[in-house]
Amino acid sequence: MENIELKILLSKKMGFCFGVKKSVELAKKAIETSNGKVYMLGPIINNPQVLEYFLKKGVRVVDSLHKIPEKSTVITRAHGISPSVLNQILKKRLSIIDTTCPYVKKVQEIAVYLNKNGYCLVIFGDKIHPEIVSVLDVIDNNAIVIDSFSEIEKISKRKKIGFISQTTKNIYNFQKLSSSLLDKTEELRIFNTICKATTERQKSVLKLAIQVDIMLVIGGSKSANTFRLAEICKNQGVKTYHIETKDQMKYEWFHPEAKVGIASGASTPDWVINEVITRLKEWYA
Amino acid sequence: MENIELKILLSKKMGFCFGVKKSVELAKKAIETSNGKVYMLGPIINNPQVLEYFLKKGVRVVDSLHKIPEKSTVITRAHGISPSVLNQILKKRLSIIDTTCPYVKKVQEIAVYLNKNGYCLVIFGDKIHPEIVSVLDVIDNNAIVIDSFSEIEKISKRKKIGFISQTTKNIYNFQKLSSSLLDKTEELRIFNTICKATTERQKSVLKLAIQVDIMLVIGGSKSANTFRLAEICKNQGVKTYHIETKDQMKYEWFHPEAKVGIASGASTPDWVINEVITRLKEWYA
Repeated sequence: MENIELKILLSKKMGFCFGVKKSVELAKKAIETSNGKVYMLGPIINNPQVLEYFLKKGVRVVDSLHKIPEKSTVITRAHGISPSVLNQILKKRLSIIDTTCPYVKKVQEIAVYLNKNGYCLVIFGDKIHPEIVSVLDVIDNNAIVIDSFSEIEKISKRKKIGFISQTTKNIYNFQKLSSSLLDKTEELRIFNTICKATTERQKSVLKLAIQVDIMLVIGGSKSANTFRLAEICKNQGVKTYHIETKDQMKYEWFHPEAKVGIASGASTPDWVINEVITRLKEWYA
Repeated sequence: MENIELKILLSKKMGFCFGVKKSVELAKKAIETSNGKVYMLGPIINNPQVLEYFLKKGVRVVDSLHKIPEKSTVITRAHGISPSVLNQILKKRLSIIDTTCPYVKKVQEIAVYLNKNGYCLVIFGDKIHPEIVSVLDVIDNNAIVIDSFSEIEKISKRKKIGFISQTTKNIYNFQKLSSSLLDKTEELRIFNTICKATTERQKSVLKLAIQVDIMLVIGGSKSANTFRLAEICKNQGVKTYHIETKDQMKYEWFHPEAKVGIASGASTPDWVINEVITRLKEWYA
């Protein structure tokens, strides 16, 4: 008889992206070298397991600067920091560890450049995502944020439009939106600000999804880039589960002959991925 | 009994476009006011019937400057003129009537601007079309001319790409190509140089094609914009005939219950259109 067993296929791009790795390292170093209390102004990245790690190390996560005593150390988010918040931090004489992802910093710079040069700025992003909040703050909210095709219809014709994206958006949708925006202007200047890691993961997950029966996409429930990976799999018609940890897996999702694809967001740590794989192997050894 | 008869529906945008109207008027005026012989360096527009009109007025159409005696008047094409040809005309002390369409002039200016500012210039166009030949001459051939999706694949990744189009290309294809080009660069700067008349005609013909059984697209066999209109109709699956004049129409194409749509290129004169409509009415009065 043929040896029938569950097959696990991994996406080619897994683990922390460059920006997340850098942010986590900066935060770790700050904790090691700081004498006093270390505060985090909002979760450094959208992964609860990583956040838990920092909580165990004694870091306090707060949602407002008021909760941080003067002269403490404050770690700001990988998603960027608003100039107004930065000003308040400086006024309070806090020691700042700015972990803003360099790619998010670039989005802010391009937004400022397009604004200064008379482009009507359109951003593909989630209005309430911290990255977009920080970008909007840099340009005094002088932009149109869109998240769907129907929103393009509402944009009036402009002489010149600048178009950028949240770093973690779907590259295929960004391309389609770009082509639709051409209807609204004589000049369309597009900066592809979707970060390379995002694009690579999306392309890699698309390839994987068409080869498997079930997709497990591992990452924070609030992680925009993980959500997008799951969305791409679902659009391919494959049964897809977005989970944070092994504990959310259900035995009945699988069957012995299944091909299971595994992908993870840019802020999912290796240990969380490994635990999921181990559990699958335990169930179908 | 119901009165069954052939129905004729006209596209909302017919007759000469702004640029063609201007070129033809300039040429007519030159003939009226000139004392000596008037020469045309290539067909002023791609419509044989209009050209015939000028031949009857005594204009000589030549394919080379060598065939024009010194001090004559030369009418250049609506599709634009190369700086090198212009230099030769000036050297020969010819009196020039430059009928270049203002929208083509704008394409040349934008091409120069993008070139000077370090963009890898990509042009959606036909390499041998006189408009593209004139644009390429302005920028010393420093551009990649593409006419299909497969050609994008061959373009290597660039820091910044400028993208423009021949004024008479298909707007839907230009949009799709723009979105594909985003894969090749961090910054894509698109100038929609497809002229308004082209876009309006294409959108109008698309609406018409889905309502009729047969499409007659009237215009010169070498007219790029007419060819595109016929192409759009064919892509909608409607039986489409690209004709120059009433004499190319065949009785057997039609039947009494047919709905016939009529569209025309930007260089098709009204009298040619009217003759086609008259013939149809004669057949199915």
